[in-house]
Amino acid sequence: MFYIIGLGLCDEKDITVRGLEAVKSSTRVYLEAYTSMLMVQKEKLEALYGKTLILADRDMVETESDEILRNADTEDVSLLVVGDPFGATTHTDIILRARSLKIPTQVIHNASIMNAVGACGLQLYNFGQTVSLVFFTETWKPDSFYDRIKENADLGMHTLVLLDIKVKEQSEENLARGRKVYEPPRYMSITQAVSQLAEIEEMRQGGILRPNESLAIAMSRVGGGEGRERIVSGTLAELLTQPEEAFGEPLHSLVIVGRRLHHLEVEYAENFAVDRSTWRDVAHRIYGCALE
Amino acid sequence: MFYIIGLGLCDEKDITVRGLEAVKSSTRVYLEAYTSMLMVQKEKLEALYGKTLILADRDMVETESDEILRNADTEDVSLLVVGDPFGATTHTDIILRARSLKIPTQVIHNASIMNAVGACGLQLYNFGQTVSLVFFTETWKPDSFYDRIKENADLGMHTLVLLDIKVKEQSEENLARGRKVYEPPRYMSITQAVSQLAEIEEMRQGGILRPNESLAIAMSRVGGGEGRERIVSGTLAELLTQPEEAFGEPLHSLVIVGRRLHHLEVEYAENFAVDRSTWRDVAHRIYGCALE
Repeated sequence: MFYIIGLGLCDEKDITVRGLEAVKSSTRVYLEAYTSMLMVQKEKLEALYGKTLILADRDMVETESDEILRNADTEDVSLLVVGDPFGATTHTDIILRARSLKIPTQVIHNASIMNAVGACGLQLYNFGQTVSLVFFTETWKPDSFYDRIKENADLGMHTLVLLDIKVKEQSEENLARGRKVYEPPRYMSITQAVSQLAEIEEMRQGGILRPNESLAIAMSRVGGGEGRERIVSGTLAELLTQPEEAFGEPLHSLVIVGRRLHHLEVEYAENFAVDRSTWRDVAHRIYGCALE
Repeated sequence: MFYIIGLGLCDEKDITVRGLEAVKSSTRVYLEAYTSMLMVQKEKLEALYGKTLILADRDMVETESDEILRNADTEDVSLLVVGDPFGATTHTDIILRARSLKIPTQVIHNASIMNAVGACGLQLYNFGQTVSLVFFTETWKPDSFYDRIKENADLGMHTLVLLDIKVKEQSEENLARGRKVYEPPRYMSITQAVSQLAEIEEMRQGGILRPNESLAIAMSRVGGGEGRERIVSGTLAELLTQPEEAFGEPLHSLVIVGRRLHHLEVEYAENFAVDRSTWRDVAHRIYGCALE
């Protein structure tokens, strides 16, 4: 059996009991270390499992899937992924490959940011499509995310914005010279994300991301419990002026609040507000929420 | 500490290791048995935990939250919920109540249908808002879900449709007489869901749910692994004419496929098709997907 197992959001204890059993029964266990950031050291996972993990980077999962799947028709092989296995396209690729090789496959689900985002207090029902925001460079500022946020905003829906991660990137020089030397990982901060949003709003003038009239919620290490998880709500202007450490450690995600905002959502997220009175005032005055 | 713990989607082994530790440390463990269907017997959970569970129905979680939270400032108390704790509003209510009582709270996330729906092969990024479909009666056929599906469809997005569950419902007679006698639970079938969609399309004529030109995917017991999970894809007309047992046991969910359909999504879901050639033909001819 080929198992593809979601690790959940934070640390080694977020694996399910079913997932842990599958790992223990496997002769080879691969740990995919690229689609998202692993918030726990490989060694901690190995200690819990009593197994040595094989790191599988982007190259390997995409180009060596047959090696990962080797003998999985006669023995158990596991691929561990951060979050849920259906967060990234690559996992459907390897499942399709397993199918074509007639290898039985089982997916073991777990929490991912796509559902745990509910921790911010906004109802999952009211989210539209999810968007990704990539690091801008001087010459490359892809802004199609703006159209997606606008589509959601026009319908009053919330938007989950996933922030870019650069792992195993090569410098231009190393790339040109064919040297497999990698830069340290980079994670987009809330400050940079909000500032990129502002830059595109300035250019596009759609009126959907207004510094003092648009509410947003910054999230970090969702599911990490007290002391690790950090949720901060406020206007875009407020988020932009917070010190970076206010948002906790990466990974960060950002939620743009839509107009179909319910007073219970306002009340719940108020607990995370930079300034409670500003939060309530904008929710009431701009979003039209009836608050007590 | 008050723990609110997601049980995941299927059975007792879907709890996380972290969740299991919290249950074991708790002096009282409540099992919420209404917002979704529990697919595992209470006794199986109790055997895994080595604890007796207290059933918490709708009345109790809503009106007796102080009893559930009793002493949670000095000892550990757990509330177990199916899926993830942020699937239903009620859980934000009890967390707000815990906060107001200054009881420390920790949410332990898990998979829910809101992210595990990715198992059908459609990208989570391309889903719009989620809708709920309730049981129609002769006199009550609420159709606002249609506007929501249309909003998604107009943008080309997929829609997850959650099907109604009736648990602990009283007959009109028992209700009138104040007798706490409950009807057996009912779960909406795929056949009934598709037939209700057709009824409203007939009335509204929005052209978004066309029997032979709209693709959909029926899902049952997602995450249950081989033999339990069932996924069936096809046109609405095809799904309507399948025998009910083709869709497996409840709970069921339905996905309406949007126009932003990628050929990899078509290829993945083709494995679940009632008829592969119809599936590909509609994806190509109506949805405009470039297929090999």
